[in-house]
Amino acid sequence: MNTAVFELRREALKEELKARNLPALLVSHAANRYYLSGFELHDPQCNESAGWLLITADGDDYLFTDPRYMDAARQVWDEKNIGIYAARKHDEVCAFLKGKGITSMGFEPKALHLFDYDKLSSLVQLTLTENVVESLRLYKDDEEIRRMEESIRLNHELFEYIEGQLVPGKTEVEIAWEVEKFFREQGAEELAFSTIVGVGPNAAKPHCIPSETKLRDNELVLIDTGCRYLDYNSDQTRTFWVGDTPSDRFKKTMDQVREAQQVAIDIIRPGLPFVDAYKASYAVFEKAGVESLFTHGLGHGVGLETHEPPSLSRGARGVLEAGMVVTVEPGLYDPEWGGIRWEYEILVTEDGCRVL
Amino acid sequence: MNTAVFELRREALKEELKARNLPALLVSHAANRYYLSGFELHDPQCNESAGWLLITADGDDYLFTDPRYMDAARQVWDEKNIGIYAARKHDEVCAFLKGKGITSMGFEPKALHLFDYDKLSSLVQLTLTENVVESLRLYKDDEEIRRMEESIRLNHELFEYIEGQLVPGKTEVEIAWEVEKFFREQGAEELAFSTIVGVGPNAAKPHCIPSETKLRDNELVLIDTGCRYLDYNSDQTRTFWVGDTPSDRFKKTMDQVREAQQVAIDIIRPGLPFVDAYKASYAVFEKAGVESLFTHGLGHGVGLETHEPPSLSRGARGVLEAGMVVTVEPGLYDPEWGGIRWEYEILVTEDGCRVL
Repeated sequence: MNTAVFELRREALKEELKARNLPALLVSHAANRYYLSGFELHDPQCNESAGWLLITADGDDYLFTDPRYMDAARQVWDEKNIGIYAARKHDEVCAFLKGKGITSMGFEPKALHLFDYDKLSSLVQLTLTENVVESLRLYKDDEEIRRMEESIRLNHELFEYIEGQLVPGKTEVEIAWEVEKFFREQGAEELAFSTIVGVGPNAAKPHCIPSETKLRDNELVLIDTGCRYLDYNSDQTRTFWVGDTPSDRFKKTMDQVREAQQVAIDIIRPGLPFVDAYKASYAVFEKAGVESLFTHGLGHGVGLETHEPPSLSRGARGVLEAGMVVTVEPGLYDPEWGGIRWEYEILVTEDGCRVL
Repeated sequence: MNTAVFELRREALKEELKARNLPALLVSHAANRYYLSGFELHDPQCNESAGWLLITADGDDYLFTDPRYMDAARQVWDEKNIGIYAARKHDEVCAFLKGKGITSMGFEPKALHLFDYDKLSSLVQLTLTENVVESLRLYKDDEEIRRMEESIRLNHELFEYIEGQLVPGKTEVEIAWEVEKFFREQGAEELAFSTIVGVGPNAAKPHCIPSETKLRDNELVLIDTGCRYLDYNSDQTRTFWVGDTPSDRFKKTMDQVREAQQVAIDIIRPGLPFVDAYKASYAVFEKAGVESLFTHGLGHGVGLETHEPPSLSRGARGVLEAGMVVTVEPGLYDPEWGGIRWEYEILVTEDGCRVL
């Protein structure tokens, strides 16, 4: 992406900081960092940061990283505003900032561990913030939508391809690897998340890890997968029947799941409360007396991360707005039998929505 | 792994908790959780937990997760000690624990975000701890060493294979994908980390992301990769010359790097301060006047995570002990030219060490 995109996003963030009366924001969440800078979409491990941004409301912005990323940093950031830290990271970052006259900043409470917080808060003044960068990332711009459409296109192609590979005898692990190879050989950077492949009762574990369980003739298999392509994640689920004679229970459950999905999609438009999308699907299950088998939320935002705001769940507050992209993925699960989930990604448009 | 392994580890942790005067420990770090329970080695995202353990010094232990993982939880844990939370996670977990008479616990400061900490600390008494589970994980037991030997065996086989694939015209991305395919097709669960492939100057970025840059005749390429196999990560780096006539600079730099590596390996034994391993390599570079091109630590522990304690760096405190597995990976980098790194994994034995 050209650097102007990131500059525009930082400008939008500066306005947001002014509106919230924050002099600066320490950005430690990896996807937020990348969204604002193009620097390192991933941290090497969850407990190890590739770097932090300090975005000021009204002045220069800074990028802090360790020597491993020095060269990568220089490619996206003005060298005079890069701080390279070594072992005493917190002291070094804060000393650098004090040299620039910065002693107070907001921080991201879901992306800063107690260890970092304790060190930093003894050196500068930290203010807890809520979803500052996320509030920008909620609304996908045209370039983001273009990329997400490319990512989901590959995901649709995957399901067309993989349906033909579902023959009895193949293991869940083998199917998962065929999924991954397809995505990667079509140009995806990586999986968006670990592919779920669940045969029969395994499909009832919404986050089951593929095992050596084999596909069986006349048995269901659930596949939940997505890729990262052009930086953006896709996420879709299908449940297939392997064999010629789907059971009555499969057909009935599938109808319930697809109906629950459709009623939600039918009402999605700007202004709809998140919880109402959930409630619409839930009502279908409730009417059929199977609501206790629907054990998760209806969907979630997707973009640079697979799971990002908003959440379409029972306790969600807020309303859908144009530019949001959410999954709609009702499911019914019975550990004794199996599970069915069907998932689309939905773009909220000015006057309704569009299935991606 | 059979469940007895996890029980033994929890017993060891209980002794550690008693020694530290902690009534209980909230385990939120994913690898620690898995080490103690066999439940979910990964969190779905860095900002999203698959579950927490509460290990008591002298009583029952508890597993908390959300409904998605209910079935997976039941497979490894006594159902009466499983707590399933929904939207109000912190309230629900703390209410469950209070019902068991537990109101005070240690927590892992590098694995608990401010958001979680704030919520929990208003409900129970939290005590900051340091490396409690990590202090057990430092010493690999026989079964862990067996698995790590299998993982590194695959890593050695990878480098034998991939050297034959390094022909001019292939891109860094293509090489990285060939690496991944090899690992996966040999049975690895996943990559241990994103493979680094750097041609020429790209090799000077210690964490460079593979690009469309092509291998060139008579040019170096650095590959840093590892797999997760039988749950355990391996991590090795090699730098190859593509073509018949390695440059003088390549040969000289390679000699310096390999010598710096060997002097460290030569002295590794129980009792050696971590920093002395680093200093031994650094001294080789210093003597050659190239120490400023050595921009990172000498190595790190490896096991369930690619990067785990101990750290063999300039500021490290502590000494090597039998059962530790560390990387030794000196490197020299010049952004104008390229970089060379060579990495082995070293098991500290009773009377010295062994290259894995």
